Amino acid sequence: MIRTRVASIVLEPLSKAVATATYSHAAFRHSSSTPASSHFLRRNFSSTGIRMSNTMKALVFAGKGQPALQDRPQPTILKSTDAIVKMVKTTICGTDLHILKGDVATCDTGQILGHEGVAVVQSVGGGVQQFKPGDKVIVSCITSCTSCEYCRKGMPSHCVDGGWILGNTIDGTQAEYVRIPHADGSLHPMVKGATADEQVMVSDVLPTGFECGVLNGKVSPGNSVAIVGAGPVGLGAMLTAQLYSPSKIIMIDLDANRLEMAKTMGATHGVVSTAGTDVVAAVKALTDGKGVDTVIEAVGVPATFELCQEIVALGGTIANLGVHGTKVDLHLENLWDRNITITTRLVDASTSPMLIKLVDAGKLKTAGLVTHTYKFSEMGQAYDTFGAAAKTNALKVIIDF
Amino acid sequence: MIRTRVASIVLEPLSKAVATATYSHAAFRHSSSTPASSHFLRRNFSSTGIRMSNTMKALVFAGKGQPALQDRPQPTILKSTDAIVKMVKTTICGTDLHILKGDVATCDTGQILGHEGVAVVQSVGGGVQQFKPGDKVIVSCITSCTSCEYCRKGMPSHCVDGGWILGNTIDGTQAEYVRIPHADGSLHPMVKGATADEQVMVSDVLPTGFECGVLNGKVSPGNSVAIVGAGPVGLGAMLTAQLYSPSKIIMIDLDANRLEMAKTMGATHGVVSTAGTDVVAAVKALTDGKGVDTVIEAVGVPATFELCQEIVALGGTIANLGVHGTKVDLHLENLWDRNITITTRLVDASTSPMLIKLVDAGKLKTAGLVTHTYKFSEMGQAYDTFGAAAKTNALKVIIDF
Repeated sequence: MIRTRVASIVLEPLSKAVATATYSHAAFRHSSSTPASSHFLRRNFSSTGIRMSNTMKALVFAGKGQPALQDRPQPTILKSTDAIVKMVKTTICGTDLHILKGDVATCDTGQILGHEGVAVVQSVGGGVQQFKPGDKVIVSCITSCTSCEYCRKGMPSHCVDGGWILGNTIDGTQAEYVRIPHADGSLHPMVKGATADEQVMVSDVLPTGFECGVLNGKVSPGNSVAIVGAGPVGLGAMLTAQLYSPSKIIMIDLDANRLEMAKTMGATHGVVSTAGTDVVAAVKALTDGKGVDTVIEAVGVPATFELCQEIVALGGTIANLGVHGTKVDLHLENLWDRNITITTRLVDASTSPMLIKLVDAGKLKTAGLVTHTYKFSEMGQAYDTFGAAAKTNALKVIIDF
Repeated sequence: MIRTRVASIVLEPLSKAVATATYSHAAFRHSSSTPASSHFLRRNFSSTGIRMSNTMKALVFAGKGQPALQDRPQPTILKSTDAIVKMVKTTICGTDLHILKGDVATCDTGQILGHEGVAVVQSVGGGVQQFKPGDKVIVSCITSCTSCEYCRKGMPSHCVDGGWILGNTIDGTQAEYVRIPHADGSLHPMVKGATADEQVMVSDVLPTGFECGVLNGKVSPGNSVAIVGAGPVGLGAMLTAQLYSPSKIIMIDLDANRLEMAKTMGATHGVVSTAGTDVVAAVKALTDGKGVDTVIEAVGVPATFELCQEIVALGGTIANLGVHGTKVDLHLENLWDRNITITTRLVDASTSPMLIKLVDAGKLKTAGLVTHTYKFSEMGQAYDTFGAAAKTNALKVIIDF
């Protein structure tokens, strides 16, 4: 762990920042009374209505199934490499739902959730070289010290003082203010060629889909790709797969609506995987009976991982994107001689600067991933909407501060 | 399937060849009376003792658990791309034992076994360009037409008119004469810098260990390698791993004797995996607690594949060499975020020309892999010895014709 002297901390007047983000208790109650979120918020909200200038609102993992908007002290610089940012927009990830289910052992009760968003830098420690107060930034879901063994070999996902820590082992981005450790390796400057909403997709969705799905899956010109699961990260893979010009992108999902949406963003085929559909036969029919060169698993349950094994072509690759909670069956009795590759990866976000260039140039359009927008005071409703995606057709839910 | 006119067949006088390889029945009986092989041969040998000039001896898969030396018609050129070779040396592979157990569904009863060996070309079809009668050759375990979709993309393991067919779907090399389809893509000229025994290792052991283990496992300078299983193919991987200068090669096997042998051939460490040994702890202790960069699975059972998952480092690769008969547990709940790669492969033998150069130059020494030598008339004893490797310390058993 890196412990250094905190020097030259630059702070904007807190009062202004807090004023911008303070809710009246009345407004909050009003929000919480909508049917979709009332249960969620009534159970968890424990605000006294009294706000002090050094507190903030934050969405906290208050226990299994209990997301709670709570008052928390504002974060402060703890190390010289820290920045404090004021969130402008955040979003909810499927991983946040996993945490709320109790599936993520590393995340303790009491943690502020969230690892995505765009923000404005409020203050920086003396060791921060790339950012200054007032800079508009994209927060990476991966914190990188840039100098440990793993960072230096291009694998900051496993940075010894970082990796996926935001909203996991340290407080995250679903709060008005966030402490970003190793700011130089963990923030990116926002660009002008895309909206702030679009740039939120660079925090996690785009690099995860690209690195864990497209790069690991060795998508290449003329090849065929199947993506099992048309949720946000599956669609992030679908969007970035097109950077390598595959001949076919076959999306597979239970939800016909998502498949139609995927087709408007570049998928060439959709296969609805409802009970009774022979998905394997459908994929084989689209690939001269051979299966696909790249299969991207973007669900995270044993059944979908087994499907991937049935549709991968000789010499093909199964790239895992899903967050798995249990072991799966690997049919080596069928696969041992089929020259296949299976990959797993926690996103390194090392390609984010490249992806930002494409977003800025308008060559990677992420606006279609955003289906809903809420105010931060409506976080309960946002979680309800995102958690019921099958009903609400939600993909990414943008939260405005 | 390719069917072409057979043209310009060149034949050496058969009588000479047959004379060289004919056994007297008496000699055979003498051989079969040795304790190790008597049961095997008494049960299976059905020779009448009468030999005709167009017959030959062959080791046949006569049924589950029944290898049998039988008289068979000598093969003839069927397609213009065929060669007929007279075997000089062959060997037995673990895969042959799998076939005898009934584990290989593609291999029917009645097939002549074997897919390795060195030979002399007897006759060639009119389409064969690279070989002529009298040429001394190494038989590749993989038959390659060189022109189908898979061959042209460097994956002849899945050649549409070849792949692993010798001793599987067509008659193999444990016979006096063998028909080699697509001779131009399936034979290699022998070299002068190594003995014939050493060159038998190029048929299968070396390219399998190298391609499926070392190349797929991304062995690279300074990295650590563990090989689970110190049988012939595991040792083939161990020998060829050294081409990429890893810092550590840790062999893991039940048999301490094999580990000692491995150390004489380049392994840096051995871990005996007998019950009660904490293999994971031993490997972690050798790798600063991190596990190994490349794990090569060279056994083919669920327990060893699970061990591989426990000792692979962050960002590492598990390269499967084993022939698996059942599914295995893949612990994605632990591995989904560890940036690992798992590969499977049937050997393509596309690196055999390169490996032959190294064998010829004395830079790849395979003599240590040969532990026993038998005459072809002693095939029963050879199978007994190879099948009881734990007792006999057998690695590769060379059969002289």
